[in-house]
Amino acid sequence: MLRIAVDAMGGDHAPACVVDGVVHALQESSNRFEIVLIGQSAKVEPLLAAHDVNSLNLKFLDAPEVVAMDDFPATAVKTKQQSSLVKGLQLCKTKQADAFVSAGNTGAQMAASLFVLGRIPGVLRPTIYAYFPRLGEGLTNMVDIGANIDCKPEHLVQFAEMLTIYQHYGAGIGKPVTGLLNIGEEEGKGTEMLKQAYTLLKKSDSQGKITFIGNIEGNDILKGHVSIVVCDGLVGNAVLKFGESIPEFLGILFKQSLEKLVASGQMDQNTVKITTDLFKGMLEPFDVENFGGVPFLGVDGISIVGHGRSSSKAIKNMIYMAEHMIEKRVNAHIAEVLIDE
Amino acid sequence: MLRIAVDAMGGDHAPACVVDGVVHALQESSNRFEIVLIGQSAKVEPLLAAHDVNSLNLKFLDAPEVVAMDDFPATAVKTKQQSSLVKGLQLCKTKQADAFVSAGNTGAQMAASLFVLGRIPGVLRPTIYAYFPRLGEGLTNMVDIGANIDCKPEHLVQFAEMLTIYQHYGAGIGKPVTGLLNIGEEEGKGTEMLKQAYTLLKKSDSQGKITFIGNIEGNDILKGHVSIVVCDGLVGNAVLKFGESIPEFLGILFKQSLEKLVASGQMDQNTVKITTDLFKGMLEPFDVENFGGVPFLGVDGISIVGHGRSSSKAIKNMIYMAEHMIEKRVNAHIAEVLIDE
Repeated sequence: MLRIAVDAMGGDHAPACVVDGVVHALQESSNRFEIVLIGQSAKVEPLLAAHDVNSLNLKFLDAPEVVAMDDFPATAVKTKQQSSLVKGLQLCKTKQADAFVSAGNTGAQMAASLFVLGRIPGVLRPTIYAYFPRLGEGLTNMVDIGANIDCKPEHLVQFAEMLTIYQHYGAGIGKPVTGLLNIGEEEGKGTEMLKQAYTLLKKSDSQGKITFIGNIEGNDILKGHVSIVVCDGLVGNAVLKFGESIPEFLGILFKQSLEKLVASGQMDQNTVKITTDLFKGMLEPFDVENFGGVPFLGVDGISIVGHGRSSSKAIKNMIYMAEHMIEKRVNAHIAEVLIDE
Repeated sequence: MLRIAVDAMGGDHAPACVVDGVVHALQESSNRFEIVLIGQSAKVEPLLAAHDVNSLNLKFLDAPEVVAMDDFPATAVKTKQQSSLVKGLQLCKTKQADAFVSAGNTGAQMAASLFVLGRIPGVLRPTIYAYFPRLGEGLTNMVDIGANIDCKPEHLVQFAEMLTIYQHYGAGIGKPVTGLLNIGEEEGKGTEMLKQAYTLLKKSDSQGKITFIGNIEGNDILKGHVSIVVCDGLVGNAVLKFGESIPEFLGILFKQSLEKLVASGQMDQNTVKITTDLFKGMLEPFDVENFGGVPFLGVDGISIVGHGRSSSKAIKNMIYMAEHMIEKRVNAHIAEVLIDE
């Protein structure tokens, strides 16, 4: 039976919403996998006591130390060996767990994953991607989104290759399509790094590793004609965080406009409700909750990284993501494709 | 009297909407300035014939060649000397006009402006900025947005300094506030280039040239606590174009949701109208039309760059922007501050 280690202490709403997410995942899946929940016993055990733990495939492991959201990544890994973060990854390293899930300090999780699990042979730099809303069916991911800044062309190519493998095997997309985020569509646009990346992406396409359609621009991201947007983490991070701020910004503008209409008697309470539901539905594709988390691609093990503000629903989805990564053997496929590079 | 040269052939809807914009600007301002409209006489003169041109402070100058939207910038400048673009800028160079306005090929306009007008002494690289919506009063500009990629730290500092001068003298903002777009707020974040830019921006602040609040992230852009977001043009271009695609994307989602509500009988035609107006009002701050265009900061003359899809309203606002740049002596202030760098 699959065994998934979960960091009880990771995230803004931890440990309460982590415990809820774990319990829901086990109940909903009828104990399809086993969960090892790791955290400070004084904080986690009282929360577990509120549930019928005996009916669940759940073990608890005490970890007296906690990596805080603002801990410096490299230091946290070295000085907090008894943290849920480091202990969870060590369970993976020693094959006592098949995957690790956390919504804690992302930088520390990446540093610890790399330190404890190492890289898949052939991988230059592990990476993380993000989800973007899109028109129509399918999904759009952007890679890298901040784990790697100052990338070399060959890094971008591997990001696209690893994400292609994830989308194909992990997300069931027949033929993931990659676009290179640039300042114009024409070949020859951009910095030297981007020009070289363009050439190498074409080569990877000709080797059958990816499907590359060329340069795309910022206004192509939401259109849905590529499933993979590849860029340096500096660019990706700026676009991602800007995009994440849109729902709140529009929410404030919406509320202001609505209040004016109500005050002037142009809108009754029923219309307010319908309009508010419409507005919420419209922004639903921007909701990070739906995606839960993403695997840290390229590390030699499964480490699922979640958003700090993850809810119990997001934690549950991260656990399913971990299960999926194990069953679809995504890392084995990455090793096969990248070993000769 | 001020004299403004306007490119009749620039933009997706040229020359018709340029002629309309010029006529409206002169009528609305009671012929406060003189306009020299430049373009192909066969195309422009029939459009002028529809207006009472004699009552307007308007001259027409024939330019047989046209720089197309997809012309390669450097080539266009050299091979199309008889274009409205090159002729308009030459009027500025020879002091027959005080400013030039175009909504044509941005790259070609920048290349031609630099070639014909040159740089203000002390300026390393001219730049263009863009407007972003924000919460509350005031305005937010991002610089650079694609004119300069692969920037050095000292370029970013000058962008912030020039935009500070524009915002202070040109837009009447008492104390423009600059943030450096980075992957985290803490000092020491980002690439070597960004770390050095941080240090130089602090120095510029201590010299009283700018007000620098430190690093900001993508989700800070819309919040309105900085008026200047400074970044490399590669990052700025991606964020800007992504932002520009939001209204259309949301418009499609809105329409889909609305159609479902109408089909299921939950929304009558009156509510549809109120809700649609509300939605349009909410996205109004994203409308590039409101801003018209921006000056190409750092060239030794006034060259106002407009969006390709500029309407007659945008053209009119670009003409007012030109007038403003002349009267507020923005370039003289830039020369004073940057001369010693």
